[in-house]
Amino acid sequence: MMSEKIDLRRIARELNISVSTVSRALRDSHEISVETKQKVFALAHQLNYVPNPYASSLRRQKSKTIGVILPELPNNFFTHVVNGIEYVARQKDYHVLIYITHEQASQEKALIRHLQSGRVDGVLASVCAQTNDIEHFLGLIQLGIPLVFFDRVYEEIGVPTVTTNDYEASFAATEHLIQQGCKHILHVCLPLHLSISRKRLEGFCAAMKKYGLLVDSHSWLVADDMESFYRALETRLIGNCAPDGIFASVEKLAITVYHICQKRGIRIPDQLKVLAFSNLETAALLAPPLTTVTQPAFEMGKKAAEILFRKIEKRREIFEEQHYVIPSALIARASTLGRLSYPKFSEEHVAMNAEK
Amino acid sequence: MMSEKIDLRRIARELNISVSTVSRALRDSHEISVETKQKVFALAHQLNYVPNPYASSLRRQKSKTIGVILPELPNNFFTHVVNGIEYVARQKDYHVLIYITHEQASQEKALIRHLQSGRVDGVLASVCAQTNDIEHFLGLIQLGIPLVFFDRVYEEIGVPTVTTNDYEASFAATEHLIQQGCKHILHVCLPLHLSISRKRLEGFCAAMKKYGLLVDSHSWLVADDMESFYRALETRLIGNCAPDGIFASVEKLAITVYHICQKRGIRIPDQLKVLAFSNLETAALLAPPLTTVTQPAFEMGKKAAEILFRKIEKRREIFEEQHYVIPSALIARASTLGRLSYPKFSEEHVAMNAEK
Repeated sequence: MMSEKIDLRRIARELNISVSTVSRALRDSHEISVETKQKVFALAHQLNYVPNPYASSLRRQKSKTIGVILPELPNNFFTHVVNGIEYVARQKDYHVLIYITHEQASQEKALIRHLQSGRVDGVLASVCAQTNDIEHFLGLIQLGIPLVFFDRVYEEIGVPTVTTNDYEASFAATEHLIQQGCKHILHVCLPLHLSISRKRLEGFCAAMKKYGLLVDSHSWLVADDMESFYRALETRLIGNCAPDGIFASVEKLAITVYHICQKRGIRIPDQLKVLAFSNLETAALLAPPLTTVTQPAFEMGKKAAEILFRKIEKRREIFEEQHYVIPSALIARASTLGRLSYPKFSEEHVAMNAEK
Repeated sequence: MMSEKIDLRRIARELNISVSTVSRALRDSHEISVETKQKVFALAHQLNYVPNPYASSLRRQKSKTIGVILPELPNNFFTHVVNGIEYVARQKDYHVLIYITHEQASQEKALIRHLQSGRVDGVLASVCAQTNDIEHFLGLIQLGIPLVFFDRVYEEIGVPTVTTNDYEASFAATEHLIQQGCKHILHVCLPLHLSISRKRLEGFCAAMKKYGLLVDSHSWLVADDMESFYRALETRLIGNCAPDGIFASVEKLAITVYHICQKRGIRIPDQLKVLAFSNLETAALLAPPLTTVTQPAFEMGKKAAEILFRKIEKRREIFEEQHYVIPSALIARASTLGRLSYPKFSEEHVAMNAEK
């Protein structure tokens, strides 16, 4: 590993100045003449000198790095969010450190505790499904480390949030299923202490009630873990009181629905209509193409990063209670349209044109 | 931000010992008695003390972090690789820093140069498609920072590599297309200076020749950028000499094929058979289900991380020239089987059972 000390000494020796002068020149200190700075920079460049970031960080108290906490990675929504975050970070010349909690509360706590130690200048977080304990996030806030939540948020702890219009988009999606003839819709979702789960369920229930449809505890199914969810959903779909529509609150639950329908020979959309909150790039290519509530993932990541950098740069216009909402779009495809046995290209074209 | 200095002093004051004793106790030094260590650890825990990682890093020359360089993120192969890497890193109590080059040579160079400064203890890299310049990687090696390549590798610079059996898997996939009746197969791939592109193309050409099929410069199409690739492929697919089979060297090119076929009404598999190197989780749910060469992504990430940690821990059994190969599996689905107008569930079941 290259030692900073040796390099600074070498530059000092070759230019016949003190190490401290070299160090201050490299930090662009006003105490050092422009002429000396130019000589130091030229030689440093020639020697391929790279400052040690940890030494620099201690001096400046800046890591030039932001941390991003994601609940899971094979997830199209989060990958687009990360691209939005990176877009902003690149402009600020910051590095993006991505951490994955795998939906584990213990992982989330360990990571946040780790980040309390000054490794990053700020944190963007989407919380995991396994807990609603906020102690570790409060610890971060108490230390003054800037924090912004996106998508899965805790609104009550005084931190800016970036979300989509979960309630309204969910209401509109439910209305779409009802207008396509569904009467017994099953809403499948992640645990209800997650903000996105609660709001999307509330939007679903409100729309059902508006149309006079029954809502009771059989109207939704919570996926605590994917294996038991698969079994519970399969039982519902082949039972006597099978639903005629499924609204998946997150993408991976819709993929489970498709797998069960394929295995059990349940025909989408003529026996069962399906839609989901999803950023799946193959949504239009599935058999049949999947109707999606498409979230503005890139824009959400971009907005969350912009707010975080305003906090890092201590700009005054930031209000901790500010909640930014970027609306989603319903894209109707064959999985909710008509009573087809097979996907018809004509209908998908309508949907694809609507995307443009 | 919590200051380490103040906390060490407070622990020292409260226990009536020196700051240096506290510091050595926290580092579990043999110079300090077990009794003193226990007192220091108990009080540190009580005070919620978190050591500053940059100060610790300077002392130990360990960042307890590894860097992972990925060419792109919305990519199912790489997300599974990252999960394999994280699986190992968690056991070692290391953090994983994920960097994305977006296939840009300038990004890759900037990141590697940044990592030369001691921010990470080791680097796992899959190289970007835009360059075959290796200077920046040589810089990393000269500084003694452990490096392991996975998937997209430079074999000639004396660094361990983890790949799949690109040539053999490609040969077998091509043979499968030929056995299904294809005579004019188009191989679509990323730029040929990438190791995976070259080997997969070589496997394809060898299989074509084995069966006496023509191979010339029209037998493959390189995707330099996705927009011009889309146009070039569309032209080929609707032209007079349209291929009867497509072998996509990477997943995203197969998705482009499906989009063009959907737009142009080209029926898969009766007009065109399609297969791809892919870890797409929706492969079996597409219209029609996509035949894949499925790479052992998780295992590749796990193996690459294990080798990196052996290098970081300076174990002697590591040979820089070692190249690990983990084989892929061909999973035949409807996109290459029979002459069907629509996907039939029965055939997909065969394919799905084959997966188990």
